[in-house]
Amino acid sequence: MRKIAVLDCFMEPKHRRQVTETAEKLGFSVDYFTEDKVPADLAGDYEILYGMPEPKDLKELRNLKWFCTPAAGVDIYMGEDIFPSPQVLLSNSSGAYGITIAEHIIMVLLMLLRRMPEFQQIVRERRWVRSMPIRSICGSTITVVGTGDIGTTFARRAKAFGPAAIRGVRRSKKAADACFDSIHTTDELDALLPDTDILLLALPSTASTAGILSRQRIALLPPQALVVNVGRGTAVDQDALMEALNSGAIAGAALDVMVPEPLPPEHPLWETRNLLLTPHISGNMSLPITCDIDVDLFCRDLAHYAAGEPLEQLVNRNLGY
Amino acid sequence: MRKIAVLDCFMEPKHRRQVTETAEKLGFSVDYFTEDKVPADLAGDYEILYGMPEPKDLKELRNLKWFCTPAAGVDIYMGEDIFPSPQVLLSNSSGAYGITIAEHIIMVLLMLLRRMPEFQQIVRERRWVRSMPIRSICGSTITVVGTGDIGTTFARRAKAFGPAAIRGVRRSKKAADACFDSIHTTDELDALLPDTDILLLALPSTASTAGILSRQRIALLPPQALVVNVGRGTAVDQDALMEALNSGAIAGAALDVMVPEPLPPEHPLWETRNLLLTPHISGNMSLPITCDIDVDLFCRDLAHYAAGEPLEQLVNRNLGY
Repeated sequence: MRKIAVLDCFMEPKHRRQVTETAEKLGFSVDYFTEDKVPADLAGDYEILYGMPEPKDLKELRNLKWFCTPAAGVDIYMGEDIFPSPQVLLSNSSGAYGITIAEHIIMVLLMLLRRMPEFQQIVRERRWVRSMPIRSICGSTITVVGTGDIGTTFARRAKAFGPAAIRGVRRSKKAADACFDSIHTTDELDALLPDTDILLLALPSTASTAGILSRQRIALLPPQALVVNVGRGTAVDQDALMEALNSGAIAGAALDVMVPEPLPPEHPLWETRNLLLTPHISGNMSLPITCDIDVDLFCRDLAHYAAGEPLEQLVNRNLGY
Repeated sequence: MRKIAVLDCFMEPKHRRQVTETAEKLGFSVDYFTEDKVPADLAGDYEILYGMPEPKDLKELRNLKWFCTPAAGVDIYMGEDIFPSPQVLLSNSSGAYGITIAEHIIMVLLMLLRRMPEFQQIVRERRWVRSMPIRSICGSTITVVGTGDIGTTFARRAKAFGPAAIRGVRRSKKAADACFDSIHTTDELDALLPDTDILLLALPSTASTAGILSRQRIALLPPQALVVNVGRGTAVDQDALMEALNSGAIAGAALDVMVPEPLPPEHPLWETRNLLLTPHISGNMSLPITCDIDVDLFCRDLAHYAAGEPLEQLVNRNLGY
């Protein structure tokens, strides 16, 4: 029987049942491993791998035809020769993270706009201060760089708060969700920055997104600008952002991703002014619905794979997502 | 000329211009005072008062016909004999606070669901912990007690996050906004509590809302329940809520209103488990759009008043809002 290996770092019993039942109907058997690699003596057994292995361990799976990662970002799997053969299909689980990351973004945005960290400090000191001026999503001009699952799921929620405009920025001029008031290409980004109140970066880590929020672009942002990054830390010139925050050139930022991760205790990011740091928690597997959708996506593509159809979640190795 | 006194605690120059121009067109002149009372020697001059005076100071305004408060809650002005005459019209500014309070509610809800205070503590300690289980608005069953401006503005935003259901609870069975999946009367509340994931109290302080979240009703909530109160502290049996939080009988709460306010430093609420306290900041005048709408509402009712029409913002003294 054709075999699937699952490196199970997140599944509940119902998820294993769903994968096993789907696989058996399609003529596959499934083995689950709680380690992050397939044992060496079984490495030749598997046609399909679903899990988050170390990139260096993929090569051993000499009969691998399809590797699906439960993550959305595939940057660590983009090396030319980490796979046993260049024909191995690579798919991701983009689509599973929009809900959880969008909620993270709305939360940190409201915390920055409403000065919640300052009010929390006041409460820790058991003081009663009410009168600090705050801001709203309502009436704000939002620029969303990256209009994939995460950017779109965020924009749909943000829309309900009455922003002045939500502008989507993407690689090419393609139709996007109706929640965007306008869609722009990356070469128009500079023109959008001076009147941006809220800048969201929701990008995969690729050659063309690295450093996209450059020092020059940070300098184009107005003093009230808030920057949120939930994609990959490489998208931002982190030194320039720290300087802009410490000098008050922009109003605030929330970084869930940074360079490096984990952030070492002596790093200056920890002490940057008006910065809400989180340890890459916006989009991991800690929300049950993320896991549910992730398993659904894999099972759907398993049916496509068995039928010889194209995978819906296939990664375009030229684009990097 | 007929005269208006404004006790100005929040206005920008544009707001004063708007009030003055509206008044002059309607045949009124306006005096602005930055104190919270009209000077005694002028107290007989004013037909209209717009501001937040101490209730005890109202009686001096012996020719007062209409008193408009820029606040939404009028509980402090419900005394039978605080006005110079029982004919004085009382209006409030309900409608100005929905946007700011709804954003506060979404923020504290997401912070509780996503364990943000714990992650903030981890960040303060410069640690890197990612794996705590979190929850979502998506799929949650929400019960909104009070379907006025605040409850409705919240529900419209919450709807965009994909909750399982948003049930509105109000005094009488009247049509409510379409964002509510169902509308119930207060006598049905007990039946709604056992499957409530999120309970929002957005109520004025009246005889019929005092203690509405009683010890008996808190006991009907399931262990995953989160309680948010943004109306008045009197709506909640605070001792019973503290016990439920400290024992883990419910999962968390966010209180922006409490008894007493300001909360004294020795009060046990400060140290209650899984409680996100804020010093009554959800709906004050610290958001510019709140002030803009507030002034709009007053100017609109000033036109009604001048034309001898009913005030849109008139308080029903029997209901207390």
